[in-house]
Amino acid sequence: MSMIQVGVLGASGYVGSELIGILMKHEGVDISGISSENNQGAAFSSLYPSFKGQYDAQFESNQEVISKSDVVFICLPHGKSEGMVKQCMDEGKKVIDAGADFRLNDLKLYEDWYETAISYPDLHDQAVYGLPEMNKEAISKTSLVANPGCYPTSILLGLYPAVSEHLIDTETLIIDAKSGVTGAGKNLSAVTHFANKNEGFKAYKAGTHRHTPEIEEKLSLMGADNVKVSFVPHLLPVNRGILSTMYADLENQTAPEIIHELYKDWYADDPFITVLDYGDLPDISHVTHSNQCHIGLTVDERTKRLIIVSVIDNMQKGAAGQAVQNMNIMMGFNETEGLAMAAPSF
Amino acid sequence: MSMIQVGVLGASGYVGSELIGILMKHEGVDISGISSENNQGAAFSSLYPSFKGQYDAQFESNQEVISKSDVVFICLPHGKSEGMVKQCMDEGKKVIDAGADFRLNDLKLYEDWYETAISYPDLHDQAVYGLPEMNKEAISKTSLVANPGCYPTSILLGLYPAVSEHLIDTETLIIDAKSGVTGAGKNLSAVTHFANKNEGFKAYKAGTHRHTPEIEEKLSLMGADNVKVSFVPHLLPVNRGILSTMYADLENQTAPEIIHELYKDWYADDPFITVLDYGDLPDISHVTHSNQCHIGLTVDERTKRLIIVSVIDNMQKGAAGQAVQNMNIMMGFNETEGLAMAAPSF
Amino acid sequence: MSMIQVGVLGASGYVGSELIGILMKHEGVDISGISSENNQGAAFSSLYPSFKGQYDAQFESNQEVISKSDVVFICLPHGKSEGMVKQCMDEGKKVIDAGADFRLNDLKLYEDWYETAISYPDLHDQAVYGLPEMNKEAISKTSLVANPGCYPTSILLGLYPAVSEHLIDTETLIIDAKSGVTGAGKNLSAVTHFANKNEGFKAYKAGTHRHTPEIEEKLSLMGADNVKVSFVPHLLPVNRGILSTMYADLENQTAPEIIHELYKDWYADDPFITVLDYGDLPDISHVTHSNQCHIGLTVDERTKRLIIVSVIDNMQKGAAGQAVQNMNIMMGFNETEGLAMAAPSF
Amino acid sequence: MSMIQVGVLGASGYVGSELIGILMKHEGVDISGISSENNQGAAFSSLYPSFKGQYDAQFESNQEVISKSDVVFICLPHGKSEGMVKQCMDEGKKVIDAGADFRLNDLKLYEDWYETAISYPDLHDQAVYGLPEMNKEAISKTSLVANPGCYPTSILLGLYPAVSEHLIDTETLIIDAKSGVTGAGKNLSAVTHFANKNEGFKAYKAGTHRHTPEIEEKLSLMGADNVKVSFVPHLLPVNRGILSTMYADLENQTAPEIIHELYKDWYADDPFITVLDYGDLPDISHVTHSNQCHIGLTVDERTKRLIIVSVIDNMQKGAAGQAVQNMNIMMGFNETEGLAMAAPSF
Repeated sequence: MSMIQVGVLGASGYVGSELIGILMKHEGVDISGISSENNQGAAFSSLYPSFKGQYDAQFESNQEVISKSDVVFICLPHGKSEGMVKQCMDEGKKVIDAGADFRLNDLKLYEDWYETAISYPDLHDQAVYGLPEMNKEAISKTSLVANPGCYPTSILLGLYPAVSEHLIDTETLIIDAKSGVTGAGKNLSAVTHFANKNEGFKAYKAGTHRHTPEIEEKLSLMGADNVKVSFVPHLLPVNRGILSTMYADLENQTAPEIIHELYKDWYADDPFITVLDYGDLPDISHVTHSNQCHIGLTVDERTKRLIIVSVIDNMQKGAAGQAVQNMNIMMGFNETEGLAMAAPSF
Repeated sequence: MSMIQVGVLGASGYVGSELIGILMKHEGVDISGISSENNQGAAFSSLYPSFKGQYDAQFESNQEVISKSDVVFICLPHGKSEGMVKQCMDEGKKVIDAGADFRLNDLKLYEDWYETAISYPDLHDQAVYGLPEMNKEAISKTSLVANPGCYPTSILLGLYPAVSEHLIDTETLIIDAKSGVTGAGKNLSAVTHFANKNEGFKAYKAGTHRHTPEIEEKLSLMGADNVKVSFVPHLLPVNRGILSTMYADLENQTAPEIIHELYKDWYADDPFITVLDYGDLPDISHVTHSNQCHIGLTVDERTKRLIIVSVIDNMQKGAAGQAVQNMNIMMGFNETEGLAMAAPSF
Repeated sequence: MSMIQVGVLGASGYVGSELIGILMKHEGVDISGISSENNQGAAFSSLYPSFKGQYDAQFESNQEVISKSDVVFICLPHGKSEGMVKQCMDEGKKVIDAGADFRLNDLKLYEDWYETAISYPDLHDQAVYGLPEMNKEAISKTSLVANPGCYPTSILLGLYPAVSEHLIDTETLIIDAKSGVTGAGKNLSAVTHFANKNEGFKAYKAGTHRHTPEIEEKLSLMGADNVKVSFVPHLLPVNRGILSTMYADLENQTAPEIIHELYKDWYADDPFITVLDYGDLPDISHVTHSNQCHIGLTVDERTKRLIIVSVIDNMQKGAAGQAVQNMNIMMGFNETEGLAMAAPSF
Repeated sequence: MSMIQVGVLGASGYVGSELIGILMKHEGVDISGISSENNQGAAFSSLYPSFKGQYDAQFESNQEVISKSDVVFICLPHGKSEGMVKQCMDEGKKVIDAGADFRLNDLKLYEDWYETAISYPDLHDQAVYGLPEMNKEAISKTSLVANPGCYPTSILLGLYPAVSEHLIDTETLIIDAKSGVTGAGKNLSAVTHFANKNEGFKAYKAGTHRHTPEIEEKLSLMGADNVKVSFVPHLLPVNRGILSTMYADLENQTAPEIIHELYKDWYADDPFITVLDYGDLPDISHVTHSNQCHIGLTVDERTKRLIIVSVIDNMQKGAAGQAVQNMNIMMGFNETEGLAMAAPSF
């Protein structure tokens, strides 16, 4: 079988390096090249020594990588992807953009929250939001996937059945999310200085995080009416994982077992979603280093609220794993190819 | 000056051992004795080697300790305190009960949530709920203080001004709390096995934690009408600290600056409460090993919700530190005696 | 291709569960069954929730598993393996014993250090010590592999070239090793209670650890004369990884570059060994979740000592990964099959 | 009693901030001022929020602080202290220099290892090496104390009795030390980026660390002949603590119990040193947030080596705590004033 050639732009960052690890295990692709503006000529394994002797390729320019690739993963900061996507599309490549530039349908919303102008509005019409559990068919037909944000992935998967089936009053939605520090990337900061973070824990950007409009727009597409959520992220002293705790008033008196059954059925065919037993709540450590999402739920009988807890690995299902899942769907591979990573939680 | 003689029942547990550390620095007391049913005759420092050469006293029986003490701290599991309190009171001792037995005014509520019968209902009339920022005068006059739970302390301090001033709709209250593992004590369990907890994070007892009725009853006393909260605790991979994130709809259009000013004024005279600048959110690490509570708040303008975040050290302000603060108030010491522990956060 | 049937005895422990994770990715084998004396009938994924929906098989009896398998991995405590090995061998199975029972050639040494009697001395003649970098050919021909201890693996790989080439005075060998807590297994203990271990670090069994005779016997086989090492293990507050720092007087004035070159050449054909640049010292995090061993070395010019630092993942190259590597060699698979797990170090 | 005025130069760093925490508890001193070249005008508590409401003083210039102080603590990088010390001494102040500039008697050795020229050689004659357990009387009489390095403190305390009594062959000394990350200070670096350090562990500067000549010079003063040590430090994923494991051949056949007894006697009058029971090895967590040093020892009977393990908190006994201990001795305070910080290890 001839191998698909895949390239990674911005492979020096955390998402890019996680992608390399996954793609090396993928049986249907070759890594055609990797780029990094600041590291051209350096070996990938000099930045990520785990790969010594296993993947020692050098960083090249974006253009060199694009020209050698059938599929291009873009792992660049927001605002930097759009032009690269234009170029890739002009050259007839398939693209999975791990950044934020193509996630929102409402371009005005993007420009407001990201304080960045859109240059190629038409291009955005072609983008499909790459949450496979929601958009599998569209993903299979597009050439441009906008890979979801890490927080939105964990949140949307947790809320999808409840919102679609109108089980909850979305006006009352509270989302309290907690992420490991790899979500903040490899740039040094006082916040992620070990002595500050170890034994530390805090909330940040309460009500103002840029993932808010993405969450709201996609919930609306699932059937919520003009939803506005309170979204507060927190930074955990762990490397990987997002746990989102979601609270909403029940819209009617649906029995807890019915809700649970609905969730089980909803995701019955999705290989990466596990709905736990009713009342069983998930642990971040159970999904780290895997593309799995575990969802637990319970009804707070005293307050008639539905409480949903979901966990993912922010680097996998929240970024690089989901990007490969999207590629698999786009290119006709088995959805789990390269992603079958079961391991104990320690 | 003659020293007050203080004893600690149940000093082999985490709260008891933290108490010993504080009492050793207190200039107005001598530790008269320590008890532990399971460790009589053993040296305290054999269980807690940090104390080697500094506090090597042996565990005695409860009765021995009571008889030598003016003030007795009780650090026993719920259900075990009540009888001890009876005995101490009969012998004319002052008592600070670090357990749950005397925290609730509504004894029926206690019996339901704790599945434990009350034996001496009259005794409960004498107990004062030991949240000093709320009940200072009553504490100064009583002989029996019920030291608050760790979660309730962090939550009540965060909500006290908003609830008292009717700024929020308490029917919409969501409390998402996160605690370090010392809250689970020294008993071994799979949940607190290092390989499980390190890099792990999970919610537990969603909507069913025993601190729920304590939170609700005290909020009612602060002025909330028949409040029912959704309370979900989570277990952090850190040793110490509780961070509680609280969400509620604003009752009216009070300006954020007014709310913030109100909080600053409310706690202006409380030596252990720091209200941060508006929008600044606290970190658990800033209060570990101290009796401080830091409170941050922000208004989510899009949803008209007040978001309050409070942090304490669960072993200090959430247990042993607050117990000593209560003793200081009861016995006429300076409120901060023994508790002036400033240290950097690393 | 017909798949090899492999079974795992004692699959409820950490090594067993790690094995399952690896075997699921192995393209040449099916997991025929798993056993656990204490968990018969329970689902594997109820103990290890990461596997929910991916590997939900139930634990069976040892005998059931053996009868369905071509190859049997034994992950039982020392003293429990020997009888199982006997049974497997009698039934014509190939065996990889992850325990200690067959690691030592000198049975008297085993009986002394492990305080356990040998029952089938003849059986031990058939066992090959499963350090592939040392014994590849013998492993390929045997039916019984004794999988090395975790500490000995890291230490022997670090010393093999220096000892074989007589570069160092083995009488002066000091081995200071540090392991993550999974090495202590899943049994609960105060030592691995989170609140004790997090922010804790200590040495244990200084000079008395049971891996000592294994290290010494294998070093003798490599060419050291009647070597006696000082071996002190320490317990790190991390889940995975062993770092061994080894010190020995140089036997002669071999130039550092020559020694380094020798190490590079020695392991040039070993897919799991990476010798770092001279003076570059390895980090545990660079090999976690992989079967790699990284080795760094430097000469302390002032004292004329060779300092060697090696790192492995104790669960992988130190246990389950090496067990599969041995199976691959025994069964004629590619040595790296199932083990090509590159991932970034975060 | 009139309070001693003490100032801290370089109070924005980790050692400086730890000092402030200790000095606030000291009953005999007032903090006269704090300086920071880069933070003049900023509040100390804006850098270290734990101090909010407790110590909100602003940083001033070095000169302002010196002029207001009787005693000056200098927490500046090596090379920056010497001039400040000159100025303080000229103005008749007492000085405790927490940096490296005055630690070595052999100025040539300083210039070689630190690659920094000495400007005031005569000044160095007045400096006393501030290891109180070794130099108490000289400290009590001097105006200039050179506070020891963190690694040397842990190592010298562990070796002092054995070297002074010629129990070991110092030519065979191997020192394998492990430190928490606060030893690397507050400057951001990839090494101390949370995602790299959490679950990471590595050796660094093997045989080349600048504390090497300090260790050797002081061991010589204790009685070792022209000692050369192999010293390899490692970086632990914890905030605080140094554990040093030391190995040396026994010089003669002194019985283990005799050696242990000698250690107990040697430190019988030192309030901060605890010699554990024979064979009991210390844990870093038992001394964090305290000025204590715990020492354990065992004889490896098979190799006739003495193995000594010592632990300290690098920020306390390894820096700020020892600095205050030195001030106490210089100024005639009780040696433990401000330092009696017993706390459980969690």
